[in-house]
Amino acid sequence: MTRISGFDLHDVRFPTSRTLDGSDAMNTSPDYAAAYVTVRTDAPGTQGHAYVFTIGRGNDVQLAAIRALEPLVAGLDLDATLDDLGGLWRRLVGDSQLRWLGPEKGVMHMAIGAVVNACWDLAAKRAGLPLWRLLAGLSPDEVLELVDFRYLTDALSASEARDILVAGERGKAERVAELDERGYAAYTTSPGWLGYSDDRLVALLEAAVRDGFAQVKLKVGADLDDDVRRLELARSVLGPDIRIAVDANQVWDAGPAVAWVRALARFDLAWIEEPTSPDDVLATAAIRRAVAPVPVAAGEHVANRVVFKQLLQAGALDVMQIDACRVAGVNENLANLLLAAKFGVRVCPHAGGVGLCEAVQHLAFFDYAAVSCTAEGRMIEWIDHLHEHFVSPARVAGGRYLAPHAPGASTEMHASSLARYAFPGGPAWSAGPDAPA
Amino acid sequence: MTRISGFDLHDVRFPTSRTLDGSDAMNTSPDYAAAYVTVRTDAPGTQGHAYVFTIGRGNDVQLAAIRALEPLVAGLDLDATLDDLGGLWRRLVGDSQLRWLGPEKGVMHMAIGAVVNACWDLAAKRAGLPLWRLLAGLSPDEVLELVDFRYLTDALSASEARDILVAGERGKAERVAELDERGYAAYTTSPGWLGYSDDRLVALLEAAVRDGFAQVKLKVGADLDDDVRRLELARSVLGPDIRIAVDANQVWDAGPAVAWVRALARFDLAWIEEPTSPDDVLATAAIRRAVAPVPVAAGEHVANRVVFKQLLQAGALDVMQIDACRVAGVNENLANLLLAAKFGVRVCPHAGGVGLCEAVQHLAFFDYAAVSCTAEGRMIEWIDHLHEHFVSPARVAGGRYLAPHAPGASTEMHASSLARYAFPGGPAWSAGPDAPA
Repeated sequence: MTRISGFDLHDVRFPTSRTLDGSDAMNTSPDYAAAYVTVRTDAPGTQGHAYVFTIGRGNDVQLAAIRALEPLVAGLDLDATLDDLGGLWRRLVGDSQLRWLGPEKGVMHMAIGAVVNACWDLAAKRAGLPLWRLLAGLSPDEVLELVDFRYLTDALSASEARDILVAGERGKAERVAELDERGYAAYTTSPGWLGYSDDRLVALLEAAVRDGFAQVKLKVGADLDDDVRRLELARSVLGPDIRIAVDANQVWDAGPAVAWVRALARFDLAWIEEPTSPDDVLATAAIRRAVAPVPVAAGEHVANRVVFKQLLQAGALDVMQIDACRVAGVNENLANLLLAAKFGVRVCPHAGGVGLCEAVQHLAFFDYAAVSCTAEGRMIEWIDHLHEHFVSPARVAGGRYLAPHAPGASTEMHASSLARYAFPGGPAWSAGPDAPA
Repeated sequence: MTRISGFDLHDVRFPTSRTLDGSDAMNTSPDYAAAYVTVRTDAPGTQGHAYVFTIGRGNDVQLAAIRALEPLVAGLDLDATLDDLGGLWRRLVGDSQLRWLGPEKGVMHMAIGAVVNACWDLAAKRAGLPLWRLLAGLSPDEVLELVDFRYLTDALSASEARDILVAGERGKAERVAELDERGYAAYTTSPGWLGYSDDRLVALLEAAVRDGFAQVKLKVGADLDDDVRRLELARSVLGPDIRIAVDANQVWDAGPAVAWVRALARFDLAWIEEPTSPDDVLATAAIRRAVAPVPVAAGEHVANRVVFKQLLQAGALDVMQIDACRVAGVNENLANLLLAAKFGVRVCPHAGGVGLCEAVQHLAFFDYAAVSCTAEGRMIEWIDHLHEHFVSPARVAGGRYLAPHAPGASTEMHASSLARYAFPGGPAWSAGPDAPA
């Protein structure tokens, strides 16, 4: 019998603030970081990897939260744990003392997500399958066992979820084959950071066209005149057919959001993302009504399935942006996908950061195979950045994610990257703030 | 010039799970705990104290989050900091990297609350006043400077808040004098923990009557038959005139909440508290509509002012229960009090735990003096437990909180308590799990 023996933790940070990669109206100077956990077992070579993505300071706090979960997991029988990941989820989320620190939100909830996701990496490796294929091979009842319907039943009962999954059985094998062959649409945010010069913006937009992307995303919300100038520039480079989404990263109140979006609407926006607080269901719904037909997108900072449920109930979203590391892992995102399917809202996952593309692609592939069963208007965010640190990096070609084939959840980083970017002692940091990364 | 020199942190835990004090349907076995921070200065004897209340495991994670804030505060000029606590709040909440860990919720947000509250303790001591008197002495414009209206302006503008505060100037001196003389109404939850026997329940209810309380609160939600039996018992002890509130601590979905509350409504409930997820604005509003005229109360786990705003906008609350340690400190609770005043909803603060009575009483006193200016239907929760660990403990007599008189925020614990209950090394713990506390 193999047992889970404990966690190895790594504080990994990349000095992205030196180049303003990732800069937007709210996050002005991020150092992309991963609170990285390896779930160890007593079987040599058998381990799972995952992380919480953060943007620098506080990555150590996130690690402390992951460490607090170790006593709940260390010593468990590995196979029994992997055979009941719904049970593991409920034990971690439901721990009566740790629950007080959320409940189900923020640092403690994201820590649970990392531990759960590392166990999914173990499960997929045990099965010899990429995570999305493992998930797509589950029966409807096996998927239901993974989902906690607490606080969801006024919008989605287990039996309604079962109906969605049973319907998804039809044609699943064909969709899996199609995903394997054609992948899944991507859009790129690489050009759009606020800290980039106009010259750099133009060069990156031209590259996006060459690379075959059908949609790009630009950051907005710091200065309206700048936004208008950058959107004019983008439209002139991209022509009328490539879609442009914009992302305000929560900087507005409801009133200013409406005025600002209306001032940009002539650029034929694919969506306005995060116009206000991610907690503000009612304001997001009011903004959506006021800026229609501009679609509204949100989700990367939505704390849990309960807030997603309300965003859908209130008619606040055209596009639901799940994030692999914000909620409590794969299980909670299964709930989110089922909610989106129930309400007929398209899912376009948030990605970028460190390893968000790697982790979330499996959920989008699974969604197409077994839940929504449609690719209409759906695409996964892509930022071509930091993928070289992953053992099985996400790959995009011709504007599409290629199907992951390696067993696991794609969440394992190279040991050399963990060492080089260890904070604060790794060589990327210890050489001083101006050293090349 | 005096500078803030840094933080001293203490992991303080009380082995309350041994006696099931604090046990309810969700929190079955809490060890009441404080992630305690002393904000030190380079002036001998000048320091501020505050804490995040937790229920045991994870108190160390909470301390790690407070520690992450130290670099943002250490080295600041003390007087300049205390003269602009609105500015301090905005810098801590707005830190572009730490913000990712919430935003504005959970472990990181509560940590900011502790640091902000410790600075309020310093400010009140500098003024030689109890915190509520310091706050009541501020002009409307000084109060407005302390409040961040971001994400609130669709419900409450700064100018509307100013109108509320200007109206509160009239008669303020008389209300302050009345508070000094008569205190503020309390209700008691001491009898109502789920883990207590019926005999103990009866004895504590009889004590509550003797002590002059006009309302008690009982925990419910684990077993309906038990709840009916305990409420029958309570009504028989208390008679028809003493109000009985019940508290479900988030255990229900919307449908079961309605059914359960209707089954208990014949006991003439003062309110049903936390019927469902604290994030679920829409479900709470639906429950309130369905169980009327039973009033609905919530707030102890409401993560921030944005969620409170929506609860009020949606008509979800009859009673708003602010908590001193859940949000980002005094400043955010000023926003919460102003929101409640705007919507005409009564505030009955959540207390109990470790030091929640001590901390929150100042906010209720201030609310009566300067914001709502009414005591109609309002009272502060009281649990007669763990007050002996505080230098200036909250005092209740004849069913009323007595006005705090000592300079400060009442949030300083005895050094001997910090030592005795230090986790895991203090004598209350190191003697083993069955040692007397």
